[in-house]
Amino acid sequence: MWRYQAPLKDMQFVLKEWLQADSFWQQHSQYQQLDAETADQILEEAGRFCSEVLEPLNGSGDLEGCRLEQGEVKTPAGFPQAWQAFVDAGWPAMACSEDWGGQQLPQVLQAAVTEMIYACNHAFGMYSGIAHGAYECISRFASAELQDRYLPKLVSGEWLPTMCLTEPQAGSDLGQLRCKAESDGKAHRLTGSKIFISGGDQDLTDNIIHLVLARLPDAPVGTRGISLFLVPKWLDHPGGQRNAVYCDSLEKKMGIRGSATCSLSFQGATGWLIGEPHAGLQAMFSMMNAARLSVAQQGLGHVEASRQRAAAYALERTQMRAPPPPGELLRDPAPLHWHPAMRRRLLELRAFSEGMRVIGYWTAQLLDQQDEALAGLLTPVVKAFFTDRSFRLASSALQVFGGYGYTHEYGIEQTLRDSRIAMIYEGTNEIQANDLLLRKVLADQGQQLQRLLALVDAEIQQATSHSELDAYWRHLQQLTQALQQLVEPLQKTPDAERPLRAADDFLQLMGLYLLGYGWLRSARLALQAKGSAGPVFYQHKLATADFYFRYLLPEADYRIRMVEASCYPLAHLSWIE
Amino acid sequence: MWRYQAPLKDMQFVLKEWLQADSFWQQHSQYQQLDAETADQILEEAGRFCSEVLEPLNGSGDLEGCRLEQGEVKTPAGFPQAWQAFVDAGWPAMACSEDWGGQQLPQVLQAAVTEMIYACNHAFGMYSGIAHGAYECISRFASAELQDRYLPKLVSGEWLPTMCLTEPQAGSDLGQLRCKAESDGKAHRLTGSKIFISGGDQDLTDNIIHLVLARLPDAPVGTRGISLFLVPKWLDHPGGQRNAVYCDSLEKKMGIRGSATCSLSFQGATGWLIGEPHAGLQAMFSMMNAARLSVAQQGLGHVEASRQRAAAYALERTQMRAPPPPGELLRDPAPLHWHPAMRRRLLELRAFSEGMRVIGYWTAQLLDQQDEALAGLLTPVVKAFFTDRSFRLASSALQVFGGYGYTHEYGIEQTLRDSRIAMIYEGTNEIQANDLLLRKVLADQGQQLQRLLALVDAEIQQATSHSELDAYWRHLQQLTQALQQLVEPLQKTPDAERPLRAADDFLQLMGLYLLGYGWLRSARLALQAKGSAGPVFYQHKLATADFYFRYLLPEADYRIRMVEASCYPLAHLSWIE
Repeated sequence: MWRYQAPLKDMQFVLKEWLQADSFWQQHSQYQQLDAETADQILEEAGRFCSEVLEPLNGSGDLEGCRLEQGEVKTPAGFPQAWQAFVDAGWPAMACSEDWGGQQLPQVLQAAVTEMIYACNHAFGMYSGIAHGAYECISRFASAELQDRYLPKLVSGEWLPTMCLTEPQAGSDLGQLRCKAESDGKAHRLTGSKIFISGGDQDLTDNIIHLVLARLPDAPVGTRGISLFLVPKWLDHPGGQRNAVYCDSLEKKMGIRGSATCSLSFQGATGWLIGEPHAGLQAMFSMMNAARLSVAQQGLGHVEASRQRAAAYALERTQMRAPPPPGELLRDPAPLHWHPAMRRRLLELRAFSEGMRVIGYWTAQLLDQQDEALAGLLTPVVKAFFTDRSFRLASSALQVFGGYGYTHEYGIEQTLRDSRIAMIYEGTNEIQANDLLLRKVLADQGQQLQRLLALVDAEIQQATSHSELDAYWRHLQQLTQALQQLVEPLQKTPDAERPLRAADDFLQLMGLYLLGYGWLRSARLALQAKGSAGPVFYQHKLATADFYFRYLLPEADYRIRMVEASCYPLAHLSWIE
Repeated sequence: MWRYQAPLKDMQFVLKEWLQADSFWQQHSQYQQLDAETADQILEEAGRFCSEVLEPLNGSGDLEGCRLEQGEVKTPAGFPQAWQAFVDAGWPAMACSEDWGGQQLPQVLQAAVTEMIYACNHAFGMYSGIAHGAYECISRFASAELQDRYLPKLVSGEWLPTMCLTEPQAGSDLGQLRCKAESDGKAHRLTGSKIFISGGDQDLTDNIIHLVLARLPDAPVGTRGISLFLVPKWLDHPGGQRNAVYCDSLEKKMGIRGSATCSLSFQGATGWLIGEPHAGLQAMFSMMNAARLSVAQQGLGHVEASRQRAAAYALERTQMRAPPPPGELLRDPAPLHWHPAMRRRLLELRAFSEGMRVIGYWTAQLLDQQDEALAGLLTPVVKAFFTDRSFRLASSALQVFGGYGYTHEYGIEQTLRDSRIAMIYEGTNEIQANDLLLRKVLADQGQQLQRLLALVDAEIQQATSHSELDAYWRHLQQLTQALQQLVEPLQKTPDAERPLRAADDFLQLMGLYLLGYGWLRSARLALQAKGSAGPVFYQHKLATADFYFRYLLPEADYRIRMVEASCYPLAHLSWIE
């Protein structure tokens, strides 16, 4: 059976050659102690942990799922032990400040580790999925007392946080929140129901720290009346005074079944305000860029897992005749990867996984470089584009397995089911598309977009000295021009709905364009072959780049046409008849 | 909660106005006793049965699944009773000859009923999924004695057939079959293992008739050495002499969990040859057009179910602000279908479900008209295009539900999981694509393709007298020209792999083109509004046609570009590193 292999060589290519991360680290006081060799060791160690500890629990965790027993959640067999090993190895503290016991590593390395965790076990990853975001939120907005009490335990991973936003009537629309908080003089009492709370209860840690959005008695209606509270499961110490927050039920879900998705009931639970009254969304959104980038890495992780699973199966399975590769004799039956339809899927998986790795890590490095503005432009793209493609590509990989792919045994159908959630949570992909086009492009007057186009143009200028890259950079240059021409009509239209109709295609276009940028630079670096990855690696890089430009980037032109088509209104019909 | 509503009005539009089926029936001796009114009643009755009996068992059947108890399969609660009701109502006999107790109804009505069954309960539908194909196969190829003994019970639905093709090493590649058959003078003894046998055992009927592919001792290797056998579960009568065929295990699957997918072991089981020795594939393929068309209808059924589910939810759920429809006041929160991103999904579901209904039923009518050649061209397109789109559209519909869509409660995640299998079985969609391009187009020298293009052209000629249709028919005419130009280079290329690289995009192009044909004719009929469907129906038809031509047909141009891109070779890489 397949066993996950961390794509260390490609990760190193991205970090060292594409991003030149180590020279950035050396110039930046916070990361000066980090060098490329240490980074390699960290990734290697993380890859081993994910492959040896997390991946073996993936299928069993899915079959077993979580149980609610007398109000307490039991996670699948092996999950609590795996979490303990994760804590013992120090992984939760990776990108946290040394002030709180963290290792102060850059987010780009966190992104690589996140990719590996989710490639191996999405459900397990969910338990610590918002840990770093909660750390950011508390360390920026909570009182010194709350920080002292909770941050060390959260950074070490002894305790885990949750993010309690959603209520039955309030999904994407947080303005509809009803959960209440009333002061009792010393603290607040929270009352209400929350749903879809990942890890709302679990048996991995002996305390759980809920971050809860609720309304104070004098709160304005809508999103301006929402405050953020810290509500621990155990008040003084684990096993001591139980706080009045309870898990009512678990969701039966399509996937990530090893992750406990809880309905929580707050019955006058004690909590403390984080940040200012009514400014809870601001505090909550402080973790959004990081959290959405983490979801993007989930997408990448699933693509990598799909790629590896499909490739392993295609190598061992033989069916029917196919034209043999150059220099090989006819075989009947032939290996699956000789069949063009299958080889195309495998190349697509490869081109997307490697292209997404470049752009995902780059976005994380922009956060390390505190270029929040450009990271803010890229974040909705990578969140939505990566997760959208990861679901499609899992389905494409499943097809390589034929009927076996539909059975639990080969794992790929679980990848497909698990990957689907990432298009929904942390802001649905439709919300990402609107955020990108309306807020990050149009409201910004295209400033960050122009910065991006200029970066791509600089890369194009470098590419012009390599005739092998002619067709690639010319296509990318056309897309740059098209992007510039697309924005103005969307900016100026009197039709308020038009940008909303165009948003999804615009985001897909941006995703394809960004990967085109990633692949152009990767191809140039591979041509120069100055790194230590070896000739076969660079040769495959070039072949995969060629596939990207020949077979995948043409979709960008289709997306341009669809953004143009958004000039046509969408009918209002009576939907059921 | 949602309850399925058979789309009777649209079915009637397709049958009466688009296909003019009743005038064909009146001209054709076999169907002369059928009129439009009777057809309406049949569809109405079938719709009621599917909605009231099958749909309520869909979610529970998925959660419960099938069990293997002491070698016998137990289907989910309610399935045996539902089957009995199905038999009592005479549905199994619909399109079978009166000679065997059938009702001799046209395949086009069978297609409509198939759509409804799979919209409501795919897993249940699987048990009788190949019944009509088995009937065709036995009535064409089996001996009179076998026909007398088995056909009446199969036609009535008292007994159910299975189709035993796949073995662990032989999926798409039937040439690798190893199952053996040896004569004992009077009959044959079958030995070997079969996998993925739907309904290989079940508790719906008191006998099961397996159609089994196996090799005789003197069989040539490959597909020319395969014979077909009839192997009943009970030899003389149910409860009498048990034949040596046993269910070893059930697959744990992504979806259609209420359908028993069995591994069968033949341990010297008694069987009888159907047709000539070594000519088993020919007999088996005699049911392929009908079986693949049936799978296409599964795709349509899922699109219709997805459409209805998403529309029902979008009408009742409110979230966030959105531009109000003309004449309505602002609402905060607004109904989901006010949001352009959601309305676009709903329109897409509608345009595909109605477009597929036209083309799916038309293909069935071509079989009624015994135009096997044109039906043969369309069959791989509708099988692969409908099932591919039904999976994508189920995912699109799921997105309308947000987080709720990921839970079992709302049913849409089950539609997504169930729909996925149809891209794999009855010939994977890659096999359909190769069948279409290599066999049905290139090997045919484009003859049937030219017939199709001529039909489309005739419709275009009619459309030219309606200025409202200008943009539509012009686009379709461009596609006709492009199709003619695409085929020649694929025909003449010395690169043996090229058509294999182009096949999938060519099939998608054909699917979009066919739906374009369907929508152009539907739009013209709606403009003329001569039917009895009422002004709102025709107005919505026109609005949906407009959406198809503005927002969906542009994908066809992208597919043309991808067929052209197939001139670029696909690299052979080492896939795992």
